[in-house]
Amino acid sequence: MNIPEKVINRLSLYHFIFDNLSENEQYISSTKIAQLLNIDDSQVRKDIKYLDNSGKCRVGYEVKKLKFAIEEKLGFKQNRDAFIVGAGNLGSALAKYDSFKDYGLNILAMFDNDPKKIGTIINGKEVFDLTKVSNLALRLGVDIAILTVPKEYAKSAANYLAGAGIKYIWNFTPCILDVPKDVKVWNENLIGSFLQFTNNNEV
Amino acid sequence: MNIPEKVINRLSLYHFIFDNLSENEQYISSTKIAQLLNIDDSQVRKDIKYLDNSGKCRVGYEVKKLKFAIEEKLGFKQNRDAFIVGAGNLGSALAKYDSFKDYGLNILAMFDNDPKKIGTIINGKEVFDLTKVSNLALRLGVDIAILTVPKEYAKSAANYLAGAGIKYIWNFTPCILDVPKDVKVWNENLIGSFLQFTNNNEV
Repeated sequence: MNIPEKVINRLSLYHFIFDNLSENEQYISSTKIAQLLNIDDSQVRKDIKYLDNSGKCRVGYEVKKLKFAIEEKLGFKQNRDAFIVGAGNLGSALAKYDSFKDYGLNILAMFDNDPKKIGTIINGKEVFDLTKVSNLALRLGVDIAILTVPKEYAKSAANYLAGAGIKYIWNFTPCILDVPKDVKVWNENLIGSFLQFTNNNEV
Repeated sequence: MNIPEKVINRLSLYHFIFDNLSENEQYISSTKIAQLLNIDDSQVRKDIKYLDNSGKCRVGYEVKKLKFAIEEKLGFKQNRDAFIVGAGNLGSALAKYDSFKDYGLNILAMFDNDPKKIGTIINGKEVFDLTKVSNLALRLGVDIAILTVPKEYAKSAANYLAGAGIKYIWNFTPCILDVPKDVKVWNENLIGSFLQFTNNNEV
């Protein structure tokens, strides 16, 4: 069953909640989850129906079971390997964001074209020359790139990545990439996200 | 008219496209926009209907007019002032992300509780002691905080912000905040975003 994007997003938020519960809190109600996220509890129950074993019982959902069901369904243990392309501020911050690992995203290496950055190690990840992507992608079997180069280099970098065997680009630049059809782009639109927030709340 | 979140997100992506066009490209078709984003062109036309003056003419949309209409509708010129709370890797990267300014988000100051960070300047933004939020929020009329503290401090920082007059929290931590009802939280869920991508594309 295909899970709608919004549901995936909410399920991962539920997981954050469970992750922060103490060992003593074995059960949780849909009302409690809903209240923490300021959404409707019928929504929570509907989302949980997408899971195979929700651990529902008389006193609420069994936290451990529900947590595991989300991990299974969304593939937290599938260990997807990725490169970060662009070892600037944002790229380095993402390289240091250790929570990614818990959700199955492993950053194996970083790439940049700045000689001063090449050879440095950021949170255990070596920064390589951009021209090495093709070789390393093939050798390590990596086809996901997280694109964090400055806006003005975004298009050329994306084209280069497409030619270097990258099939999935998680694009953090405020730039629309024009890549061949077999390369999937996911625009991480921070600005759009901010605008959704301000427009919906009359900030 | 209230604009659905997905539409806001796409309109901001259209704006990215226009921003990167050369001066010579005065007109653009919905087909071209759709192709760049790998979506349906009927979707693009529907989204543009939310705008007051789309600049539609015989040869396509007038780029300048359409761009301006998006800016008006989504409030790019409204200049919302915000604080960054947590001057670590991600906080610093966001402080250096100059594109925010173009879309109406001004970071006025940063806050941390690490004495080594307090008093430093990151991209022109001074880092203040966290206890100064209340005072500066009142003096500068700021009610938006971008939360980028480590996960384990997220809850206490959010509670502190709620007490210090912050009304909107853009939450970048993988942690669900439990704040009073009058504080709106917007979860910037990078992990959920990654999972949407991988689950929908069978990565």
